Amino acid sequence: MRFASRFLPRSLSTIINNSQRSSAKRIAVVAATSVGLGFGAMTLWPRGGPTTASAVTDLPVYTKMVVSTHTTPETGIWVTYKDHVYDITNFVDSHPGGRSKITMAAGKAIDPFWAVYQVHIDSKDAHELLESMKIGRLAPEDVTPPPEGAELNHFDGEPERSPLLNIRSRRPFNAEPPLSLLGDEFHTPNSIFFVRNHLPVPNVDDVTYRLRVDGAEREISFTVAELREKYEEHTISATMQCAGNRRTGLSTVKTVRGLEWGPAAISTAKWTGVLLRDVLLDAGCDASGPARHVEFEGLDKDMSGDPYRVSIPIEKAMSADGDVLLAYEMNGETLPRDHGYPLRVVVPGVAGARNAKWLARIRVRETESDGFWQREDYKLFAPSSSPETVDYAKAPAIQETPVQSAITEPASGSDVDADDEVITVRGYAFSGGGRGIDRVDVTIDGGRTWRVAELDRGAGIVRRLNRNWAWTLWEVDVPISAESSGSLAIACRAVDSANNTQPEKGEHVWNFRGLLNNSWHRVEVNVKGSEN
Amino acid sequence: MRFASRFLPRSLSTIINNSQRSSAKRIAVVAATSVGLGFGAMTLWPRGGPTTASAVTDLPVYTKMVVSTHTTPETGIWVTYKDHVYDITNFVDSHPGGRSKITMAAGKAIDPFWAVYQVHIDSKDAHELLESMKIGRLAPEDVTPPPEGAELNHFDGEPERSPLLNIRSRRPFNAEPPLSLLGDEFHTPNSIFFVRNHLPVPNVDDVTYRLRVDGAEREISFTVAELREKYEEHTISATMQCAGNRRTGLSTVKTVRGLEWGPAAISTAKWTGVLLRDVLLDAGCDASGPARHVEFEGLDKDMSGDPYRVSIPIEKAMSADGDVLLAYEMNGETLPRDHGYPLRVVVPGVAGARNAKWLARIRVRETESDGFWQREDYKLFAPSSSPETVDYAKAPAIQETPVQSAITEPASGSDVDADDEVITVRGYAFSGGGRGIDRVDVTIDGGRTWRVAELDRGAGIVRRLNRNWAWTLWEVDVPISAESSGSLAIACRAVDSANNTQPEKGEHVWNFRGLLNNSWHRVEVNVKGSEN
Repeated sequence: MRFASRFLPRSLSTIINNSQRSSAKRIAVVAATSVGLGFGAMTLWPRGGPTTASAVTDLPVYTKMVVSTHTTPETGIWVTYKDHVYDITNFVDSHPGGRSKITMAAGKAIDPFWAVYQVHIDSKDAHELLESMKIGRLAPEDVTPPPEGAELNHFDGEPERSPLLNIRSRRPFNAEPPLSLLGDEFHTPNSIFFVRNHLPVPNVDDVTYRLRVDGAEREISFTVAELREKYEEHTISATMQCAGNRRTGLSTVKTVRGLEWGPAAISTAKWTGVLLRDVLLDAGCDASGPARHVEFEGLDKDMSGDPYRVSIPIEKAMSADGDVLLAYEMNGETLPRDHGYPLRVVVPGVAGARNAKWLARIRVRETESDGFWQREDYKLFAPSSSPETVDYAKAPAIQETPVQSAITEPASGSDVDADDEVITVRGYAFSGGGRGIDRVDVTIDGGRTWRVAELDRGAGIVRRLNRNWAWTLWEVDVPISAESSGSLAIACRAVDSANNTQPEKGEHVWNFRGLLNNSWHRVEVNVKGSEN
Repeated sequence: MRFASRFLPRSLSTIINNSQRSSAKRIAVVAATSVGLGFGAMTLWPRGGPTTASAVTDLPVYTKMVVSTHTTPETGIWVTYKDHVYDITNFVDSHPGGRSKITMAAGKAIDPFWAVYQVHIDSKDAHELLESMKIGRLAPEDVTPPPEGAELNHFDGEPERSPLLNIRSRRPFNAEPPLSLLGDEFHTPNSIFFVRNHLPVPNVDDVTYRLRVDGAEREISFTVAELREKYEEHTISATMQCAGNRRTGLSTVKTVRGLEWGPAAISTAKWTGVLLRDVLLDAGCDASGPARHVEFEGLDKDMSGDPYRVSIPIEKAMSADGDVLLAYEMNGETLPRDHGYPLRVVVPGVAGARNAKWLARIRVRETESDGFWQREDYKLFAPSSSPETVDYAKAPAIQETPVQSAITEPASGSDVDADDEVITVRGYAFSGGGRGIDRVDVTIDGGRTWRVAELDRGAGIVRRLNRNWAWTLWEVDVPISAESSGSLAIACRAVDSANNTQPEKGEHVWNFRGLLNNSWHRVEVNVKGSEN
């Protein structure tokens, strides 16, 4: 069942205040307004979620046994959380994590699932939504309070992180560096390189770790030492960008689902490793055969034991110009745990999501990965698509990213002295697919006139057609009148080597997952006029 | 000398009416407003240009000998045209055809040059501009009236053309098909395939014709028959698009220079030939050496004997996935003369200008071609650049084109019956660099809501990563209310496989050469309401 889009404009709070009627229709309305849940914790809630002390006590009581018989749309799909029972029948299709994941809990407790996907526990929206689907209490004898701290087990032993990082979600850990630091160095220091984890960071056993490569003519496997010994080592400067970078710029247009990334979910490193192409050739992989995709599986697994899985087209994997690396070093250091220790794939010019970390297995396939993050998430849906109406199969998986730029300095909201007569504006620009940046323009009059920035493409980086994997940093002095004062909007846009440019407004690229926002980036500063 | 941009807003007519004072300053002003000259005949003028019968007769008289001493900025640069003398000193830097071309006529008659670049003769602006630089009369004994019809000699023997073509310039011949016919067939019939000629069509001698390949390890040359015999034949469906396609959409923003192309300077054909890569490998070409560019020279030559010359990066030329063809057939027929008989290069995914016709020579080089059309024209300049201030060296030569789409049906200005309840909108979409089209959106409410079109990527065309060389045709039914009436604006935009999309407005991509307009394409129709 899909929900009529006419319900969409109603706000979640209206519905929640509407309170305890549990008709199917009301649940449908709630489900249809559940934007903002999913992987993005829009607002943080005190740990443990809203108290259930005030819950209506005349709700029917169900035993675990009864709950376990409600697992299909026909019987109703029920779950328990702590000491209550919920009917999620009408919600499963619009679960941001996918129907297949939520129905794993059908007839059971969701507590252990939320212990892995802790973003739910941190999400006020998730708790409010669940509350709206409450239909009863769990029989007291069936309530098994988890041992103190049990929820945290899956995230025990996560690595230490720099306090400089701006955290977008704690479990799994997602964070971006301060924007002001991002443009300081061409290669982002490892400690502040943005982190995008979908699941708990796996603890890899150095002794038993092997990378397995199959699906081609020969199955082969390697320790990291064997890989290093067998294949030529390459070092490549490449920018990694989350497809959700600058999502907050779209949530101001209309609510989107996902982590609230600012413009710093992007960083650049020198990656060292061996070429995927060399390994695949060794396995007898042939791009001219029926195989069309190369899948990467991580050691990071969800509750069902399903690992993080994504794929890229075989042409990219096998191309002598594709520069896809199996990397074990990052900026000259051993790959940090948050970035995939001991081995990750670096797919330059392609969205971060395809650059799988903690690499367990590489599989050559005829079809693309059927993992959730390939088939349902990380797709650019049409603006008319909603979580309730979307046809996942119709949108292709995001691979190359569009031309992008952002202002790293001055900071939004900062003061600028009109007596300086110029504002020095700095930022980054990047395009996917190895396309270089040909020009960056900056405006302070809403796009009426533009100044062209000076470009820094990285010392010693050789420019080759469609192999420009690292970003371009840029800087321009924009004159302002000494008489200026008040708020001033600065915007930037880039042009890449395929002569694509960025669209003006967030409206022009809006999609409900808030992916690939590459509209002109804007900051507002306060110009302080002369004291004369 | 460069001209101050503050002169730019003044209109040409104001200056012309200002009449006969020939101070350096006035000439400067005129030169600075000479937009619209160049390769685009903005308005047609009766053959021979405005009469000089009304010319002021008290102008000084100069002999051919005196004129010949004025060839430098110091002496003043003079030229003659018919029976008058002109001081073009302050104009040479802003000559749309380049300083080097116009100074070839320094101290001499421009008549023979204009006989080749006949766009000048057809251009009212060119005549008005020249008139404004008039400083004297040529001594009657030095005036040599050209023999009747002499001006046409260079264009004698041009091929027959379809009367269906919409002509944008007669000499050289430039024309586009009617937009309504463009979307009818996936492969555009040869007779209405758009024509972009920079110079007269050469008459190729089949007996002596040879293609010469040099600059690599071995110099080799071929007749067409030898090429066909020696190398494997390939047929590729590829779209060709002039970088000036949709220029008229930019001239409404601010005057631009160039032919007034509508949205049909784009067509698609099945090209048959041999791979440039195979020929270059045979010549011992090595992309890992110092060579970085492959230059194409045509048999079409300007007055100085300089052939049409352009180049592409060696990576594109040598790539096994680049699919660059030396084509001798178009849609199964011998290559027509207007399209480069007997041999042209087809550089799929790259702007039409690099797809040189009447191929005489292929040269492997360390630097890109230093031809005018590589180094000065066909570059995407910043919006702040003007003909007077532009630094040609700062902008790279256009190679890959950005994501593009246009509506071919309904026609702008046509009537739509509200009783039909839907408008069927059709068009094309295309992106450079082999990027496929992932989505086309259509709006009838200015971009507030969009409908997704059905795509036709061509029967039997295999889709491979970044090797999608042919356009995508599309169609969508957009519902309209039976109560609608009046003017309705329809707009389209495409998203390509790198997730780039088109900018909203012409302002966002404006450049003085009017190149690469890929803003949303719009048509306005008249909705006729129900008669009830």
